[in-house]
Amino acid sequence: MKVNEIISKMTMQEKFILLTGKDNWSTVPMEQLGIPSIRVSDGPHGVRKVRDRSQEEKKLLEGVVTGVTWNEETLKGVCFPTASAIAATWNKDLARETGKALGKECVNLDIDVLLGPGTNIKRTPLCGRNFEYFSEDPLLAGELAAEYINGVQSQNVGTSLKHFAGNNQEFDRMNISSEIDERTMREIYLKPFEIAVKKAQPWTVMCAYNRFNGMYCSENKFLLDEVLKKEFGHKGIVVSDWWAVHDRAKALSASLELEMPFSDKSVGSLKNSYEKGEITDEEIDSAVERLLNFIFKAYDSRKKRDKSYDVEHQRKLAKEVALEAITLLKNEDNLLPINKGNVRNIAVIGDMAENPAIQGGGSSCVNAEHVVSPLEAIKDAAGADFNIEYSSAYRNWEHTSEVNGLNTAMEIAGKSDITLLFVGDTSQIEGESFDRTSIKLPAIFEKVILNIAEQNPNTVVVVQAGSAIDMSAWIDKVKAVVFSWFTGEEGGSALADILFGKVSPSGKIAETFPLKLEDTPAYGTYPGNGYASWYSEGIMVGYRYYDTYKKPVLFPFGYGLSYTTFEYSGIKVSADNIKEDDKLTITLKIRNTGSYAAKEIVQLYVRDIVTKVIRPYKELKAFEKVYLEPNEEKEINFVLEKDAFAYYNTTLKKWFVESGDFEILVGSSSRDIKASKRVNIQAKKNFS
Amino acid sequence: MKVNEIISKMTMQEKFILLTGKDNWSTVPMEQLGIPSIRVSDGPHGVRKVRDRSQEEKKLLEGVVTGVTWNEETLKGVCFPTASAIAATWNKDLARETGKALGKECVNLDIDVLLGPGTNIKRTPLCGRNFEYFSEDPLLAGELAAEYINGVQSQNVGTSLKHFAGNNQEFDRMNISSEIDERTMREIYLKPFEIAVKKAQPWTVMCAYNRFNGMYCSENKFLLDEVLKKEFGHKGIVVSDWWAVHDRAKALSASLELEMPFSDKSVGSLKNSYEKGEITDEEIDSAVERLLNFIFKAYDSRKKRDKSYDVEHQRKLAKEVALEAITLLKNEDNLLPINKGNVRNIAVIGDMAENPAIQGGGSSCVNAEHVVSPLEAIKDAAGADFNIEYSSAYRNWEHTSEVNGLNTAMEIAGKSDITLLFVGDTSQIEGESFDRTSIKLPAIFEKVILNIAEQNPNTVVVVQAGSAIDMSAWIDKVKAVVFSWFTGEEGGSALADILFGKVSPSGKIAETFPLKLEDTPAYGTYPGNGYASWYSEGIMVGYRYYDTYKKPVLFPFGYGLSYTTFEYSGIKVSADNIKEDDKLTITLKIRNTGSYAAKEIVQLYVRDIVTKVIRPYKELKAFEKVYLEPNEEKEINFVLEKDAFAYYNTTLKKWFVESGDFEILVGSSSRDIKASKRVNIQAKKNFS
Repeated sequence: MKVNEIISKMTMQEKFILLTGKDNWSTVPMEQLGIPSIRVSDGPHGVRKVRDRSQEEKKLLEGVVTGVTWNEETLKGVCFPTASAIAATWNKDLARETGKALGKECVNLDIDVLLGPGTNIKRTPLCGRNFEYFSEDPLLAGELAAEYINGVQSQNVGTSLKHFAGNNQEFDRMNISSEIDERTMREIYLKPFEIAVKKAQPWTVMCAYNRFNGMYCSENKFLLDEVLKKEFGHKGIVVSDWWAVHDRAKALSASLELEMPFSDKSVGSLKNSYEKGEITDEEIDSAVERLLNFIFKAYDSRKKRDKSYDVEHQRKLAKEVALEAITLLKNEDNLLPINKGNVRNIAVIGDMAENPAIQGGGSSCVNAEHVVSPLEAIKDAAGADFNIEYSSAYRNWEHTSEVNGLNTAMEIAGKSDITLLFVGDTSQIEGESFDRTSIKLPAIFEKVILNIAEQNPNTVVVVQAGSAIDMSAWIDKVKAVVFSWFTGEEGGSALADILFGKVSPSGKIAETFPLKLEDTPAYGTYPGNGYASWYSEGIMVGYRYYDTYKKPVLFPFGYGLSYTTFEYSGIKVSADNIKEDDKLTITLKIRNTGSYAAKEIVQLYVRDIVTKVIRPYKELKAFEKVYLEPNEEKEINFVLEKDAFAYYNTTLKKWFVESGDFEILVGSSSRDIKASKRVNIQAKKNFS
Repeated sequence: MKVNEIISKMTMQEKFILLTGKDNWSTVPMEQLGIPSIRVSDGPHGVRKVRDRSQEEKKLLEGVVTGVTWNEETLKGVCFPTASAIAATWNKDLARETGKALGKECVNLDIDVLLGPGTNIKRTPLCGRNFEYFSEDPLLAGELAAEYINGVQSQNVGTSLKHFAGNNQEFDRMNISSEIDERTMREIYLKPFEIAVKKAQPWTVMCAYNRFNGMYCSENKFLLDEVLKKEFGHKGIVVSDWWAVHDRAKALSASLELEMPFSDKSVGSLKNSYEKGEITDEEIDSAVERLLNFIFKAYDSRKKRDKSYDVEHQRKLAKEVALEAITLLKNEDNLLPINKGNVRNIAVIGDMAENPAIQGGGSSCVNAEHVVSPLEAIKDAAGADFNIEYSSAYRNWEHTSEVNGLNTAMEIAGKSDITLLFVGDTSQIEGESFDRTSIKLPAIFEKVILNIAEQNPNTVVVVQAGSAIDMSAWIDKVKAVVFSWFTGEEGGSALADILFGKVSPSGKIAETFPLKLEDTPAYGTYPGNGYASWYSEGIMVGYRYYDTYKKPVLFPFGYGLSYTTFEYSGIKVSADNIKEDDKLTITLKIRNTGSYAAKEIVQLYVRDIVTKVIRPYKELKAFEKVYLEPNEEKEINFVLEKDAFAYYNTTLKKWFVESGDFEILVGSSSRDIKASKRVNIQAKKNFS
């Protein structure tokens, strides 16, 4: 039966029912009409499938359980590195492979749509959900989200690009209005969604909880219809974040097809609005049509899915991502990698070596298959060559951490050749529905670090966290810092490979690490006044702010160390003068001049030298990760098109290229530019 | 001959010629077509008519003089108080009377259009042209501009509302792009223009020099056509600020009818663009039609003008405005007014008592009829009752000021009963084409104040300036401060009336006086980066900022002292619950409870108590100036309509009232609220 035929047979009541979920995780099936039920699951770095209860269990729980709780019993699944770790790989292929693997997880667990990826911009490092997001840069966030989506969807499983839009803090997220001017919206906050929708067409897009310039995202026709569907050309459906719908009819008019989860008010509310003439038959039928198209697309995809599933293969990929995500931030005297020559005794300190934080808190929490702890992985890797002594030093409890055997730990550290000290943010510190209140590590960890470092200058601090950390209290006291992110269940074994030099680190931070919270651009306006969060820093987000205003930072955007060194040379551009619509090719060579095989992330930034409007000092416009054996040289090509030079002109209401000189900056980080070239662009139109 | 008939007879060349001025001050006459020449003149607080040179003089100067210089020889005319002084009166009737008087000046000097008023918002106290503008509040600025225009135009003379738009600094004014988000633009920077255009239909609107969100105002179709003509309904023409046109054809397409002054490139450029097809016949004819309509309207108005002119009547009005503008900021121990009882010897100190700053610098500078200095007016008022001794203490030169007889001044002050000390900003400090670099008085004046105050605690500092001053260095050392603004040629005699208590001061500041420059909302982003001035403080301008963020200030918006006291009582609202389209009447009583007849400025602010978007803590929505004899009581009525409660919603792209409770706050200043009432408003639509 065709969709139009089904609609013609549906009663109004049936239509109203279909537009809301059946329960927490699936759509309403209608057997008589041949409409199947589609099942979704929380993501994005694994599948959090809630166990279906038996009829007996349900009876027992009747009247007791409502809604979703994060400690619901969920089925096991592989826990992959979270989005901020994926972003640190800067590896599009790996993002796509992760997507593919997640698609396989879904197929294995009979899930039709994975609720991810999240590609909101990291406006402030305080946002509790930053670990679920990619970057402070819209291009990086958009490109990685697109690859992830293409990966999942290549397995005939859908995605839900979220949270659309302006959801950049957890504080008061159900009510706060994100107040974002038009240029900032277009250039920063909507941009990753635009890229991902245009490049990957996610089956669904999930609206955010918050208000956007005063109006709930779920009822925001401008966002959902004008921008998402009409401008970006999204062909799928919009699904509400869970309980994000306030007025079902308004959401419907705004083009939100599927309210989730089941709400006992939804049908009555729709009926009521319909009878009052607040929504039309056309609006309803059009939403039902799009919803049915989605349902059948998902249903028909089931037949195409490859059911084979190899958990070890999945875990191997999780490790590969972790290997490229882990970021070496400091490495004085080349303390790392651990070298058999001068190291015999290794102290491993910290509860988080034994009980690592592999992910953040909240709805994304995966019931991991098997967590490899850093401690066991280090022991494995060390084998008989090294003596390993471990002390917890502190213990993490549900809501706090406390010192636990620090004296022993100090003793062990004191007599070791090298000390590996594990600290970080637990899922009580970084998680959904709340923001961090500080970007420092908990005071107890800072105390532990200072005490251990005093015993042994050869200390490596390994930080497990999903977002930037202020390290000012202790970074000068230790020789090395490894940022190991929330790298999923295989993060421990990846870390061991890196510590012992089996693999050179190649991760780079996809967000600026500020010196202190007070230096961040949203400081003072975040979290808003209880009604609204006012994005007064505008387009000056992340490195756009720090670089434009020449602010010192702890580690700049795109920064990360390697065990080897790279040489950039021979930068060339295909033309010194181009027209707005011409493509520009930038070519350069990278050579591995050190002794470790390694990957380098080459970053291309564009700077508009003379501008008539304010522009960030430079903006990321392309990037490439390249693998090089020692002494190997490769040529890299970047192709830039018009959008690499344009800004959003609010007077013309469109993207606009200004004639004049631009600088192409290629480097190893946003503050380590290795080569540059000037090009002159002749725009089609000059307005003044 | 009708306009359309004329156009049909015009050659393309004639059309191109007509669209640009004939010379610096008039339009091109075309005898054969019956098109007269219209003469304009700089304003806005008097007529700056440049003397026409004789043929002989012209020959002598041939090839020497080009362009306008401010020291051109200009004819005499009455110098009225500048806009910031008019704003301090908060008196709409007086603003209209000033307009009428200025219209008479024009008639007297054969001027068809006066180039004023300027109603740009005072974004920062540094703006060099703030003395030509009214206020930091768009309602006050818009209402006073409307009254001024209606006054001038009642004399059958046109006005030019300027500088449209976003011209809030002089620094780099020919190039800088004012980058203003949409809500801020609508609520703050375009609002005074909207009010003035809708209430008064100025014959012409003058575009600003700067860029507006990247595009020159002169070529900005969004501003000139979409907003000004279509949305605000302006029926007149747009004239360029002098030399503000960069590309004549683009300006024409953007709806700029008249380029000023004469430019030898204009005709060729238009011809060239026309031949290339960049402008159409329709665009040209439409602009010529509007321009001709304006020319004939101005020409026909000549016959209706009342040629009678009484210079003394004009000067009397100038004094009336000054009397209501002068603002008493501090008056410890009721040191003022000067009382025969305990004062006999009066020291008058400061060059500016003898050579007052009656206006700011630049194109608005009027060749005043006869300046009454404060010193002579004080001597006149003192008569035989007081001994007056004067010392200059310092001398103002063209570009600097220096101490000149300070010791003598200190001696005189030391033996006086009261010292009147005159300081201020000269036209070298506040003027067109440059901004102030500090909001403190020049250091030399601060030194003089501190030295004099040490000799005599009974010191009254009289400040002549057009904009807020940081008084932190000296205000605690003196008992009284009178802010006398730039009050035109009769400012001295008005000041004397106030100092001696003939009239109670009734001016209130129409701009917040901050404690220091660093406290101002644009501090840090003003003056921009050389390309753009980024209005990142958004809608939080002036008291909207200080009140929302609870910042201490020197003197709040709407503040000014009186010789008498007032009692507010009996506040009532016409309804506690209204619908969005209902009118709300607020009634209250004001009683003069002191012993001087005086005027009080009653201010009504509205606060949206619970909002879904960020809103300023409160906003001025109505005001009234009322005269009361001692013990007299009057009832005041305010009527509020929908726009008093609305904000500009950028998602809906319109003005929007949110349902809920609002607070009506009535007070004597923005921080001296005397009475309040709550009302509930039921909006027509709630979007969430």
